[in-house]
Amino acid sequence: MIAHTPEPPYYAVIFSTIRTEGDRGYSDMAALMEELAQKQKGYLGIESARTQMGITVSYWKDLESIRSWKQHTEHVIAQKKGKAIWYSKYKLRIAKVERDYGFEE
Amino acid sequence: MIAHTPEPPYYAVIFSTIRTEGDRGYSDMAALMEELAQKQKGYLGIESARTQMGITVSYWKDLESIRSWKQHTEHVIAQKKGKAIWYSKYKLRIAKVERDYGFEE
Repeated sequence: MIAHTPEPPYYAVIFSTIRTEGDRGYSDMAALMEELAQKQKGYLGIESARTQMGITVSYWKDLESIRSWKQHTEHVIAQKKGKAIWYSKYKLRIAKVERDYGFEE
Repeated sequence: MIAHTPEPPYYAVIFSTIRTEGDRGYSDMAALMEELAQKQKGYLGIESARTQMGITVSYWKDLESIRSWKQHTEHVIAQKKGKAIWYSKYKLRIAKVERDYGFEE
């Protein structure tokens, strides 16, 4: 679902990925990381979609929150497995959300 | 595919959507808009993924490029149809990419 984020400014981490073949534990780890991210300081929300490519955008209060989530022990293990097993390619972009607007029926 | 963007800083427009039922011209318009966006000044790339929700991230040189693409005549028509027909909900976030890194097998 679309994340309920506060008024800007806040940060977005745009994680764009191309997967390798087969699941090989990916889905379990993805669910675990999403659950764990929610418990981190400064976490504001997450959005995820996948066709051939996947895009996950997580939203954070500040750069410090992103940094400490990046260094979280279990997350570091997931990152290593991501490179070794699950992703053939990825790009991660850290961006400061300056404004936003929306629409709801 | 993952967009080949230049060194930061540049801008990301994160467009997160929940679709209504049925296609009703959506796919054609989405393809047209993607084609048209590529011809705009300051356009740097686009990434798109959809499951239940869709996320499209387009990348731009600066805010002026985003503003002029927003006001493009055909794009304005697509925006109106989006609200009237295709989306039950969306959120658009404009963010300044401050850093990025990637991985390729």
